[in-house]
Amino acid sequence: MSKTLFFRLLLAVLLLPLWAAAQAPAITRVNPTSWFVGMKNPNVQLLVYGPNAGTLTYTITYPGVKLTKASTVENPNYAFLDLTIAATAKPGKVSIVGKKGTQTVTRTWELLPRNPAAKGQGVTQADFIYLAMPDRFANGDPSNDKVATMADPNADRANPFYRHGGDLQGAAQRIGYLKDLGVTAVWFTPVLENDQPLTNEGGNMRSAYHGYGFTDHYQVDRRLGGNAAYKAYVQQAHAAGLKVVQDAVYNHVGINHWFIRDLPMKSWLHQWPAYTNTSYRQQPITDPHSAYIDRKVTLDGWFVPFLPDLNQQNPYVANFLIQHALWSVETFGVDAWRIDTYMYNDQPFMNRCNAALLAEYPNIHIFGESSVNNVVDQAYYVRNKVAFPFKSNQPGALDFVVENAMLAGLREVGGKDATGWDNGTQRLYQALAQDGLYVAPEKLVTFLDNHDHNRFLSEVGEDISKFKMGLTWLLTTRGIPSMYYGTEILMKNYKDPSDAEVRRDFPGGWPEDKENKFTAAGRTAAENDAFNFVRTLANYRKTHPALSSGKLMQYLPENGFYAYFRYDANGTVMVATNSTDKPATLPTARFSERMKGFTKARNVLTGETLSDIKTLQLPAKTAIVLELLK
Amino acid sequence: MSKTLFFRLLLAVLLLPLWAAAQAPAITRVNPTSWFVGMKNPNVQLLVYGPNAGTLTYTITYPGVKLTKASTVENPNYAFLDLTIAATAKPGKVSIVGKKGTQTVTRTWELLPRNPAAKGQGVTQADFIYLAMPDRFANGDPSNDKVATMADPNADRANPFYRHGGDLQGAAQRIGYLKDLGVTAVWFTPVLENDQPLTNEGGNMRSAYHGYGFTDHYQVDRRLGGNAAYKAYVQQAHAAGLKVVQDAVYNHVGINHWFIRDLPMKSWLHQWPAYTNTSYRQQPITDPHSAYIDRKVTLDGWFVPFLPDLNQQNPYVANFLIQHALWSVETFGVDAWRIDTYMYNDQPFMNRCNAALLAEYPNIHIFGESSVNNVVDQAYYVRNKVAFPFKSNQPGALDFVVENAMLAGLREVGGKDATGWDNGTQRLYQALAQDGLYVAPEKLVTFLDNHDHNRFLSEVGEDISKFKMGLTWLLTTRGIPSMYYGTEILMKNYKDPSDAEVRRDFPGGWPEDKENKFTAAGRTAAENDAFNFVRTLANYRKTHPALSSGKLMQYLPENGFYAYFRYDANGTVMVATNSTDKPATLPTARFSERMKGFTKARNVLTGETLSDIKTLQLPAKTAIVLELLK
Repeated sequence: MSKTLFFRLLLAVLLLPLWAAAQAPAITRVNPTSWFVGMKNPNVQLLVYGPNAGTLTYTITYPGVKLTKASTVENPNYAFLDLTIAATAKPGKVSIVGKKGTQTVTRTWELLPRNPAAKGQGVTQADFIYLAMPDRFANGDPSNDKVATMADPNADRANPFYRHGGDLQGAAQRIGYLKDLGVTAVWFTPVLENDQPLTNEGGNMRSAYHGYGFTDHYQVDRRLGGNAAYKAYVQQAHAAGLKVVQDAVYNHVGINHWFIRDLPMKSWLHQWPAYTNTSYRQQPITDPHSAYIDRKVTLDGWFVPFLPDLNQQNPYVANFLIQHALWSVETFGVDAWRIDTYMYNDQPFMNRCNAALLAEYPNIHIFGESSVNNVVDQAYYVRNKVAFPFKSNQPGALDFVVENAMLAGLREVGGKDATGWDNGTQRLYQALAQDGLYVAPEKLVTFLDNHDHNRFLSEVGEDISKFKMGLTWLLTTRGIPSMYYGTEILMKNYKDPSDAEVRRDFPGGWPEDKENKFTAAGRTAAENDAFNFVRTLANYRKTHPALSSGKLMQYLPENGFYAYFRYDANGTVMVATNSTDKPATLPTARFSERMKGFTKARNVLTGETLSDIKTLQLPAKTAIVLELLK
Repeated sequence: MSKTLFFRLLLAVLLLPLWAAAQAPAITRVNPTSWFVGMKNPNVQLLVYGPNAGTLTYTITYPGVKLTKASTVENPNYAFLDLTIAATAKPGKVSIVGKKGTQTVTRTWELLPRNPAAKGQGVTQADFIYLAMPDRFANGDPSNDKVATMADPNADRANPFYRHGGDLQGAAQRIGYLKDLGVTAVWFTPVLENDQPLTNEGGNMRSAYHGYGFTDHYQVDRRLGGNAAYKAYVQQAHAAGLKVVQDAVYNHVGINHWFIRDLPMKSWLHQWPAYTNTSYRQQPITDPHSAYIDRKVTLDGWFVPFLPDLNQQNPYVANFLIQHALWSVETFGVDAWRIDTYMYNDQPFMNRCNAALLAEYPNIHIFGESSVNNVVDQAYYVRNKVAFPFKSNQPGALDFVVENAMLAGLREVGGKDATGWDNGTQRLYQALAQDGLYVAPEKLVTFLDNHDHNRFLSEVGEDISKFKMGLTWLLTTRGIPSMYYGTEILMKNYKDPSDAEVRRDFPGGWPEDKENKFTAAGRTAAENDAFNFVRTLANYRKTHPALSSGKLMQYLPENGFYAYFRYDANGTVMVATNSTDKPATLPTARFSERMKGFTKARNVLTGETLSDIKTLQLPAKTAIVLELLK
């Protein structure tokens, strides 16, 4: 959509109420679409929408439910009803009654019991998260690939920007595959409805198959299977012992969101005299010397022209978003919460939202995406040990600093810089050495790539040694590891010319696919080698608390050799990296603080037993993983 | 000195006491050599040294002076006497009387009045520090160039490793030159005696002209003019309105230090089974995952084989060093305290030492050298806002992070990376944006090079535009600027093949010099241009509190343009940098938060008045400095 078109649309949206004033009052939507008896916070604010819904006088007569306040806003099509729900209220159908003169409008709204399956289990270091894009992973129901009434009615696997038909039913069929791989949690890019158009802006295709432009918070996209398929997916995953991470977006919505097409009030969004994009810059937020306008552009500038930026300082917006988060966990039973574009959100709002989730689900994990380039800025967005003027309460975050350190370091492995003062493995070592700024560095979610980055295999120049080294670090150092779908079968590519290049279909996910890389028989020898490598380490992690909850001790890299240990009272795992391009012998006397008492070791990746660990033989460009034995 | 030779010497030193036991007791040294009545802390611990001085029983009979404890240690040549000096004690000569059987040894020790000139004035952002190496700056007294009885009796200006004869008398003659340049404080590399040998270790020359290997804490090197010349220098500097910064070294001493040649006890030094160098690595100290041995090597490893590493956890060593610091300020009247190799010191000791100085001299500034590569590690060594397990009380530090950011950024100025996402001026901007970790970032001492780094002009490829840009940043952004001698006359060079290359003699500092660059007539046109550039900005700083105490506001660089402001209630100075290689017009509407109310400006460097500041004309590769006018 061009910027001009966008502003024309916005104008139309703002003029709509004038026309609507003539219509008879009605209620066409209530959000949240349902609520629950027995939440810790007994209050909920209903957004009631329909032609002239804001001109009605509301009453609710239901035992234990009290309408404490009804508010109207600029647009007469909205009313906001504050309810208090007593712990003694019974689940059932609540009538929301609106009156205007002799006219009465009634809307039924559901009060549900708490969902016993909604435990918000959280993810910890004991987990291994698999990030998949549902449209590109597996197509279980070809009948939902296209929905003719939606803004983008197309589906075409030959076109990278079109929807490809993947869905939650397809993903559900691959739960066994992930279990076998050693995955313990699945994170889908957002599943909520993205009824956004596919547009071509001067050659730039704008599509919504990625899911980051919600158009209805209470509807899972029908092309992914809708609410029922999502609920079923979570149930099946839980039954198989997998957790589910939901990808949340608070900062913006799709320009086709129903409330954008009939804006409740001007202050619902961050409005600018002329279209203003965010600078995508972190510094103005944390810089004690920053200017107001730079802070405002970072926070309130729009992510892109077709994703309007929500004003979370508007209390109605804030309530809407917080309640949606709670509703999602309770309704679908998801276990953790990944938050998109975390740093662009109003941070006091984020704290309120996080606190609300944690109050209801104390074990839930929350980890936001803040694409920053240093530890100071990364620490700002999680619980940290710095007396910043604003103190974040976020338990975790995606660890962009460690991703960058691993990739930059791996690019230097085997080359002339592998042993450099600040290069090669020093990069990872030095990134982790700054963990003192976090309250809980082990709660950060580590990764080597994602749907917005070049694929890991391409980042390391398709060098399998570096590929395995990076995966070894990911699966053995501190943090909660996450891996992008297809890494295990050597999917590669750069995001130039478009992000779609790193979001290709998983071969075998579609009934018509000739190859099926979900099965060993369908994979090449090299792909099976990669798959088995990940599977071996991931399954080892599952049963060895030293890796999943042990402490980390890392030694200063010397001459391109980097050793670290994960350990607890019952076990010690050593990871020793030779980042040079020559095999080497590493004496271990220096590591006695962690190795004393151990005389042997088992190579976790090869199964080989080492009867002498006074020195270690390290192949070129390799990280070995040793379980130390007495 | 070879490592073998070094250990032989150490053995000899440790065996010496056996031989000494036969000698008649005597006292040949008392340190501190004098003390003061009326210090806030009434206690002082005297180190009493001489053959069998530790076998004597001590008494002191002097009104107001009480000997509270006498301690002996492994080496019988040492006694440590704890004194308490009442506020009512009168200055005078105190007799220290030692008895053994019928034998009586008496040593006179001086109790002085407090020095009214010892104010510890401190340095602040209002200052501009000039760092000079006295041996290489100016030779005022050729008669002291060589001292035949010293370990290195040579002086030869033709040899970069020999002493060149510069001294404090020579520096005193150039106080007027520095005043004219706009300098307000002088920092000499250490002036204390370095009676170290000049050795050739396999082609590596080890010399001590730089001053970092003390051999007697209570003696200024005679080749620099001794204690009298130092006292005179400080007096003359103060009379001219210049402050003096002393360069302190706590971590180590010269291997020829008198107490190393007759070690009081084994634990006086950090002793290792085999010679162990420090790793020079910062990370083990701050890394929450670090190993004990890595921390120990960083802290207790020796800086080089000929600079033994003091054990500051030994209370006698700690007292010796702290008292020397106090004695130096009181005796010479220095104003600030630069601390060498700060991060290698025992940090609890450093806090005690800093606290002792600040208790007696509340305005003194203390800024250590910790050559680190990120803000987290830099913040660790100053008063910071991080809940590190150890909390430093150091008021300031040399800002290595900003130095690195400025140099790396300047290298990219004018090139293809000048406008890069994280390049060019972004580097400086991003470094300063992390100031939130410091309690007082304005107390950091900024610099572009020093005696251990490549000279600034060489670092920027001898590009005068970049040279001026860097100096403009140095003299206008937050922090206390310091400049290495000769920068103002375009001295250049790389520290390869040796540090001596960046420590060349200031032309005109020696009577025999053909050129005299202390005078305008002796400088080339280019040198005068550089000199005048520094002088203009430095003198402008002096009279404009916006620069010397105002706040900083910096704007996100865009397209290679970086603007920042220094401001207070009475004035605003704008610095606008064009880091591209093309002249440009910069609209200023974006900066309204700082520019509103101002309609005109004066270009501080050219004197030109700008009657319209809605847009600014920026020459290529230039930072302009504007005083905004109503």
